[in-house]
Amino acid sequence: MPTVNAYAAVSPTAPLQPLTIERREVGPRDVRIDIKYTGICHSDIHEVRGEWGEAHYPLAPGHEITGVVAEVGAEVTRFAVGDRVGVGCLVDSCGECDACVRGQEQFCSVKAVWTYGDTDFDGAITQGGYSTQIVVTERFVLHVPDALPLDTAAPLMCAGVTTYAPLRRWGAGPGKKVAVVGLGGLGHVAVKIARALGAEVTVLSQSLSKKEAGLALGASDYRATSDPATFEELAGAFDLILSTVSAPLPMDDYLRMLAVGGAMINVGSPPDESSLHIRLLNRQRVLAGSLIGGIAETQEMLDFCGEHGIGAEIEAIPAEQINEAYERVLASDVRYRFVIDISTLA
Amino acid sequence: MPTVNAYAAVSPTAPLQPLTIERREVGPRDVRIDIKYTGICHSDIHEVRGEWGEAHYPLAPGHEITGVVAEVGAEVTRFAVGDRVGVGCLVDSCGECDACVRGQEQFCSVKAVWTYGDTDFDGAITQGGYSTQIVVTERFVLHVPDALPLDTAAPLMCAGVTTYAPLRRWGAGPGKKVAVVGLGGLGHVAVKIARALGAEVTVLSQSLSKKEAGLALGASDYRATSDPATFEELAGAFDLILSTVSAPLPMDDYLRMLAVGGAMINVGSPPDESSLHIRLLNRQRVLAGSLIGGIAETQEMLDFCGEHGIGAEIEAIPAEQINEAYERVLASDVRYRFVIDISTLA
Repeated sequence: MPTVNAYAAVSPTAPLQPLTIERREVGPRDVRIDIKYTGICHSDIHEVRGEWGEAHYPLAPGHEITGVVAEVGAEVTRFAVGDRVGVGCLVDSCGECDACVRGQEQFCSVKAVWTYGDTDFDGAITQGGYSTQIVVTERFVLHVPDALPLDTAAPLMCAGVTTYAPLRRWGAGPGKKVAVVGLGGLGHVAVKIARALGAEVTVLSQSLSKKEAGLALGASDYRATSDPATFEELAGAFDLILSTVSAPLPMDDYLRMLAVGGAMINVGSPPDESSLHIRLLNRQRVLAGSLIGGIAETQEMLDFCGEHGIGAEIEAIPAEQINEAYERVLASDVRYRFVIDISTLA
Repeated sequence: MPTVNAYAAVSPTAPLQPLTIERREVGPRDVRIDIKYTGICHSDIHEVRGEWGEAHYPLAPGHEITGVVAEVGAEVTRFAVGDRVGVGCLVDSCGECDACVRGQEQFCSVKAVWTYGDTDFDGAITQGGYSTQIVVTERFVLHVPDALPLDTAAPLMCAGVTTYAPLRRWGAGPGKKVAVVGLGGLGHVAVKIARALGAEVTVLSQSLSKKEAGLALGASDYRATSDPATFEELAGAFDLILSTVSAPLPMDDYLRMLAVGGAMINVGSPPDESSLHIRLLNRQRVLAGSLIGGIAETQEMLDFCGEHGIGAEIEAIPAEQINEAYERVLASDVRYRFVIDISTLA
């Protein structure tokens, strides 16, 4: 099998390092992609450090991938060499179960194959986008609209669809008041998308330190959750609260900010238990979750972002700065997403 | 003002007793109703005992009222003397706010006036259905279909719409698997309605003691929540779980029984905090609540129950047995709803 350059973890504790990984030959339905940019998602860090369960090493993470098609299999119909494309969190699924038929491949009842660190249908361990090329079955390759630069589009493959899908599903749009909790990699994209969908957007952040930036992204209000007055003044204010944080939240305080019939959707993954008074939901309030998005809605999100000129705010880095970037992600010292310039891996 | 016979509480601790209460004169838009039957809802007990905050005494509770129109005001258009009618939890609202316009009068942003123990727009304290007559503004009077006997229809005014509204809102119907938690006054009506909507219904009850009765009501399965195997075997099984209990539930166990995109709706009012792992919601699961229903959906529910021959299972009692019935409600010793025969108050 062909090998390609990558930047990968060899153990849960060692820094990531340059090495080569194998890619499968291009099958009849496969697309080989020259990767141009790969975003650094917080999940990458959890995964390579074994914080979400034992990982397979060496492991090249990365599921916010953009690039250009280098080769297509004989039966590929939707892509041609030179096409600008993206790959997100998933690289395969059964394609036939209820979830797949409904376009929610992430919940495939047979097997959703995650882009890295997962066992593919052929038994191989998947390797992600911190590498120069990837081979993906056509069904899981997305078209990146011409209007979107490949670098700022890369984080959309995860952060974009993770926020777009629940915003759409729960009705963010004209006349709706949406709060975005947390202004990080997910949150800053959520603000842009919610605004472009026509909603009135408030950022709820621990402090006001990023207020100017948040307003510049499209928010019309920006409140500190460290100030108890925020929760009093915004009681019943929101149709939708999208929480992008994984820290534990005082759920009752947040639920009280929902209007009648309002929904609070969590796309973060708080590890610990949360407590709440169920009776606060009586006002037809909803507490729900969401997990990335399906392939069709990922394409819909990319097309939407193309039409509205939405990309992530990024800091591009060469591969040799990945370990340093990890520390800065953990310290929340990035506005708002690191993107690896894969040409530095050549 | 005219006085009518009633059965009422005079303090939080005294038994209810016969006395007379005042009813307003019939105004131009009012309907005076000869009450025939009034259901005993658990809320009545909480309210007269001051468990939900200080009550006004004397207080005649009762918000599951059926009867016959005795008099109508000059501007009343939808009712005539002799009509079979019902009154539920609400007797007035502003009629103009967003909630009222959407037919969700229970969330009126000015004032939803509850049927008893509340301050009406004229300043009077409302008195409920444990009485021989009630005067209600036309907009809050419902037509009881001819197909429904007035005794078994009475509990529908609260228990019926409380379960019908969320079952409809959350898509109970053909092809959907619905679990009803608790087989009491609310639960037994929920089973009948969910079945009539076309769903496949499972009862989740603490024990199997009412299994035969539950299956007779229309459930196709009946499981004991005291058996840990129930939660294992039913993992991912339900599109909708309707909890009618106010006892604290192990939320994680219940959420795991929801399919992708499934919803657990609470219509009970657990007083204490509940704990759950928010990440269990990631599979697009929903935790939500609901509070009775609006007037239009109450009429829709009555019409639906008329078409499907759905009434509550009742034990009719004379007024002098109300205090004894309260003790039996608290001991869960009723299948499934007490209904007061108001002719015994004459």
